[in-house]
Amino acid sequence: MRNFKIVLQYDGTRYQGWQRQVSTDNTIQGKIEALLSKMCEEAVEIQGAGRTDAGVHAYGQVANFNINTDKTAAEVMEYMNMYLPEDISVISCEEKPERFHARLNAKGKVYKYCIWNSDRKPVFRRKYVHQVPSELDMAAIRQAADALCGTHDYQSFTSTKRGKKSTVRTVDSIDIEQVGEELIFTFKGNGFLYHMVRIMMGTLIEVGLGIRRAEDIPSIIEAKDRSKSGHLIPGKGLALMEVIYDN
Amino acid sequence: MRNFKIVLQYDGTRYQGWQRQVSTDNTIQGKIEALLSKMCEEAVEIQGAGRTDAGVHAYGQVANFNINTDKTAAEVMEYMNMYLPEDISVISCEEKPERFHARLNAKGKVYKYCIWNSDRKPVFRRKYVHQVPSELDMAAIRQAADALCGTHDYQSFTSTKRGKKSTVRTVDSIDIEQVGEELIFTFKGNGFLYHMVRIMMGTLIEVGLGIRRAEDIPSIIEAKDRSKSGHLIPGKGLALMEVIYDN
Repeated sequence: MRNFKIVLQYDGTRYQGWQRQVSTDNTIQGKIEALLSKMCEEAVEIQGAGRTDAGVHAYGQVANFNINTDKTAAEVMEYMNMYLPEDISVISCEEKPERFHARLNAKGKVYKYCIWNSDRKPVFRRKYVHQVPSELDMAAIRQAADALCGTHDYQSFTSTKRGKKSTVRTVDSIDIEQVGEELIFTFKGNGFLYHMVRIMMGTLIEVGLGIRRAEDIPSIIEAKDRSKSGHLIPGKGLALMEVIYDN
Repeated sequence: MRNFKIVLQYDGTRYQGWQRQVSTDNTIQGKIEALLSKMCEEAVEIQGAGRTDAGVHAYGQVANFNINTDKTAAEVMEYMNMYLPEDISVISCEEKPERFHARLNAKGKVYKYCIWNSDRKPVFRRKYVHQVPSELDMAAIRQAADALCGTHDYQSFTSTKRGKKSTVRTVDSIDIEQVGEELIFTFKGNGFLYHMVRIMMGTLIEVGLGIRRAEDIPSIIEAKDRSKSGHLIPGKGLALMEVIYDN
């Protein structure tokens, strides 16, 4: 068996997210596994680094799979791109040692969230942004974003109920850039819990609207209680940009 | 009757072009007329400056219509944006003198055509670009673009058979800009014939691929014969950017 690492781009609009589901074949993982299983004439499973939700996009999702094949990495990539739909693309493919695992070996991730901060309709960007027409207090948002960074138990910022798994993560930075009508938030960290970026974004927007104060972020983290943080905002504004590995 | 001028943005992907058709209600003009007719409780006709084809986009289409209403221009715009689908937006609305006509008074137009010049799939731009994966001779394309400018009979660059109407137009400039994987061609002129930008673009791409020579452009213009120019390339790469009026 040979182990291949691929980097993927996809427009999440048409899909029910990354993860294979019994109830639908309309997932990114499902599409790719079906294709590779056909190529290899046996069942193939792939491991994705991030389980993006319905409507969430990817510029640099990473996955790996173990297959028996005589093809080179370039040939595997060519085969996949020939049969994948136009909204999913393999942008690189390389053979890795047997122990490489896209999710377990990931050391960090970068996500981007785009806010359309205008009352004009985002005609050409409507599937990639969340619209907030009101004026936002950017100084307060920046202060709140800084307070969200660090190493914390982020239980207040996930939709997953408390279980045995640790909800401690490190968020290295939340950078904010304005490009035209868009506010682009870039999150870097060692990992993100289920819905974590979208709940952090909802909380930051509420700070920007004056609904809550930047000063309250530490106590929201401290509470370890989902009911204390802001709304979960839509998946379509979110994109997985990069997965970071050692070396 | 009061005369309103509107500026429109639309994503042309889902529509059968600008112009109202008997066979389908899926045109931009048809959607807007239906909406205004409902607002005014009588049949309303609108005049668009450019009759964009199926799949062609607009960042600055202009139209006008004469209606009886007590609404202000801002209220007309608000009403329209409330009921238009998310891929059509009115970005400005103002009252004009009775004689203003969006098409007949237009003094110039600006179109943009986007080429995706990479063998990577344009996952996020697939509805707004035409992909040309091969390397292009940009010096030859620039030379050919310059030769296409000027005041000429552009009969070789339209799908309309020769009739009584003049096919003389002035193309002021064709600017070319590279942004990431995209080559953005901007056409400015006093008017463009049916399919003219898309046939010019097809011809320029063929020059870039070495299929024809930049030196042959003058004789192609001179021939006044559609069979001498290049292929009509897809509408989805094209967008009407601006319509220019006096004052």
